[in-house]
Amino acid sequence: MRNDLTMLMDLYELTMANGIFHSEMRDTVVYFDMFFRRVPDEGGFAIMAGLEQLIDYFNQLHFSEDDIAYLRGLHLFSEEFLDYLAHFRFACDVWAVPEGTPIFPQEPIVTVRGPAMQAFLVETMVLLTINHQSLIATKANRIVRAADGRAVMEFGARRAHGYDAAIYGARAAVIGGCKATSCVKSALDFDVPPSGTMAHSWVQLFPDEYTAFRTYAEQYPTSCTLLVDTYNVLHSGIPNAIRVFDEVLAPRGCRPVGIRIDSGDITYLTKKVRAMLDEAGYPDCKIVISNSLDEYLIRDILAQGSRIDSFGVGERLITASSEAVFGGVYKLAAVEQNGEIIPKIKVSENTAKITLPGVKIPWRLFDRETGKALADVITLNHEKIDDSQPYEIFHPEYTWKRKLVRNFVAKKLQVKLFAAGKQVYNSPAVPDIAAYCAAQVDLLWDEVKRFEKPHTYYVDLSQALWDQRYELLKKYAYEG
Amino acid sequence: MRNDLTMLMDLYELTMANGIFHSEMRDTVVYFDMFFRRVPDEGGFAIMAGLEQLIDYFNQLHFSEDDIAYLRGLHLFSEEFLDYLAHFRFACDVWAVPEGTPIFPQEPIVTVRGPAMQAFLVETMVLLTINHQSLIATKANRIVRAADGRAVMEFGARRAHGYDAAIYGARAAVIGGCKATSCVKSALDFDVPPSGTMAHSWVQLFPDEYTAFRTYAEQYPTSCTLLVDTYNVLHSGIPNAIRVFDEVLAPRGCRPVGIRIDSGDITYLTKKVRAMLDEAGYPDCKIVISNSLDEYLIRDILAQGSRIDSFGVGERLITASSEAVFGGVYKLAAVEQNGEIIPKIKVSENTAKITLPGVKIPWRLFDRETGKALADVITLNHEKIDDSQPYEIFHPEYTWKRKLVRNFVAKKLQVKLFAAGKQVYNSPAVPDIAAYCAAQVDLLWDEVKRFEKPHTYYVDLSQALWDQRYELLKKYAYEG
Repeated sequence: MRNDLTMLMDLYELTMANGIFHSEMRDTVVYFDMFFRRVPDEGGFAIMAGLEQLIDYFNQLHFSEDDIAYLRGLHLFSEEFLDYLAHFRFACDVWAVPEGTPIFPQEPIVTVRGPAMQAFLVETMVLLTINHQSLIATKANRIVRAADGRAVMEFGARRAHGYDAAIYGARAAVIGGCKATSCVKSALDFDVPPSGTMAHSWVQLFPDEYTAFRTYAEQYPTSCTLLVDTYNVLHSGIPNAIRVFDEVLAPRGCRPVGIRIDSGDITYLTKKVRAMLDEAGYPDCKIVISNSLDEYLIRDILAQGSRIDSFGVGERLITASSEAVFGGVYKLAAVEQNGEIIPKIKVSENTAKITLPGVKIPWRLFDRETGKALADVITLNHEKIDDSQPYEIFHPEYTWKRKLVRNFVAKKLQVKLFAAGKQVYNSPAVPDIAAYCAAQVDLLWDEVKRFEKPHTYYVDLSQALWDQRYELLKKYAYEG
Repeated sequence: MRNDLTMLMDLYELTMANGIFHSEMRDTVVYFDMFFRRVPDEGGFAIMAGLEQLIDYFNQLHFSEDDIAYLRGLHLFSEEFLDYLAHFRFACDVWAVPEGTPIFPQEPIVTVRGPAMQAFLVETMVLLTINHQSLIATKANRIVRAADGRAVMEFGARRAHGYDAAIYGARAAVIGGCKATSCVKSALDFDVPPSGTMAHSWVQLFPDEYTAFRTYAEQYPTSCTLLVDTYNVLHSGIPNAIRVFDEVLAPRGCRPVGIRIDSGDITYLTKKVRAMLDEAGYPDCKIVISNSLDEYLIRDILAQGSRIDSFGVGERLITASSEAVFGGVYKLAAVEQNGEIIPKIKVSENTAKITLPGVKIPWRLFDRETGKALADVITLNHEKIDDSQPYEIFHPEYTWKRKLVRNFVAKKLQVKLFAAGKQVYNSPAVPDIAAYCAAQVDLLWDEVKRFEKPHTYYVDLSQALWDQRYELLKKYAYEG
């Protein structure tokens, strides 16, 4: 856990907090929601990730003497405010959707309630932490679904955006469904299997490919995966691999684990390679592929009949390069003054950017018979969804589109992480989050999971929330 | 400086190092080059960045007892090798192109020479560090060039890929030409100006926009930039801002710094806003824009006559979302055995992936008259370029394309960072690197700097290097 992240904030958070400190809003309690507006890659859903690190951040929040001295030197802050920072103690309530949960646009995935100064200060770290890991978990889940049951390994550290992107990106990739990572630190920190084969440089280091393979097999007779494309897969790599399997592994009673191909026409090569390995008596030798893969390429080469057992996926996973931004935002939802909650709305000419005002609870309704997720509903926080009765949901824009949901179970999506600054939730271990994620994704209908024009899952508003939002919009429409 | 990054490596580096430890290659010295194959966004050049962190990494390399215990538990490594790791002392020579230098495909931008085990072990961190920061510095430089002299501020922390991507991404953005960053930690760590305005939540927090602006202006009369698009820029934001400038700043003898617009049609709005501010007596009030900007959007809105003084650029800079991968690779170039250097080549059916064998030096030839960069030439390490004589360069593929370069100065591109594991180079301060970068980019012809189909800058090979490569290729062509 890093403990040097307190100053990882945007300057305006500090100037606003100082401004609040010296205004009549000093003792105001506020509610902020983090939510996102669209799923990357035009997908049907995203995967929540990053809470464990967000919890660590809230716990480590403290300003050192050096931090205070630096801030003093900016000549923006009062001594009283700097003193407040020097004695900062996190005092917010925090709720969030557990890691590994499928999430949808508009839903509050993190809610922070607390003194305005504090809730303003943590904006960057809430967004940065959840945006990054949810982006990678979402991408990983897409790639894993494309692999259709074959193992996917995360191999991207070298192309990640800095050290944390490698370490936490691998964590998120495993949450999304990857079975292992090449990143040793991530494997160590998060108790997931490390994975790796060999580099082309290993093969080049030795006088010839056969010697390189033989040396490796002698060292690793029980975990021998050979990279066969340094010179020529079919004419050199596979024949040398088979020779080494015969000469080095067989006498020791060992079986090869696999061969890896990192270049060339994967469909053509894997069909040929499969036949050569089978013919040589190695039908159990797995074929691992790793060449700038993503969900689209994996889907295509599998559709063409490639013979592949597992995938090593690197740069396009660890950077989510097809859409490298998870656009989560952190918006003021309500202000609590003298015990009264005043809902707040951010209006916009772009209607997609209008926020949901008030203190809210997101729910998921599951079909009692199939267990499948039917719809999410966002209510005001005093509302309850009584799942012993039919419940009417309606489209928040085309409000005539209505549907009576029957025979369902309603579950709140958020759990409480902090109560008045004290941690009240423990993150599960990463393998457990990954298992939970897989189970939850299974509860989505296939229509929501396809890559091309997925069905838009219902995220509806309760009548009370809808009414509250409508009233505020009318007010601003008149005032604007 | 982080000191917990030793285990941030790919597992195969450890298995290969263990394999080398137990092979006849144990005492072999090798040369690895890091280079990249194409410039992101089809640009004409990239910007080198990340060396300071790479130096930190080499200096902090050490395996803790916990690391060793974890590795032992993987049952892949011998006790002798684990003991070697436990007493690991970095012993390599390292050369690299200084940060801020324009770099081109195929050039060795980092060269590591040392014991094979060590040179294999550092692959991931060399690539990760340089790939990330060079990606962001390159993108920032594009955006800064599009802004055509207007200040660009880095505002992306919340969408970065983890904490280091925010911190070091801001560092790289400043190297590429950004004038400030919103990220306080990065500003503190790297001595660059922090920057920020206010969030929509500040405006929403107060009963109305006017009160929000007035409260802010009273707190920050000398550094007052107001965000004017929470409700309606032209009918509410600007009138309220002008009122506050008149009522709060003017009586104190203060001038407003600026207004910020974060949504809407920028060209239309900035023209109107400029006129309103001028009319009200605030021609010196700057207009700051920040709305999912990148070099293309900036170029377009400036071409349409937008009235903008500076840009805050966020997610598309900090993630380089138009092309989020800098594809640097780390390839074995030579093996030193018994004092003899054996060049190594990686062949490929994809000719672009064939490596440059041998120990090499990249040079840049500058015109004596204009100072402009004319061409880069990669030679073998025993060669010198005598710039008192005309020097013939030739296209490495179309070898009949030849050119005699006259009246030039030849400079080696790499500097030595480590000698036998000891640091022999000190990183300049980030503002100095940024100034160096701007000066070096000025030495490139405009043809290389345009966004659309830039001129391909010459990166040629000396005749000796070309011949060595050709001989090796012929050898593998026959053997393959």
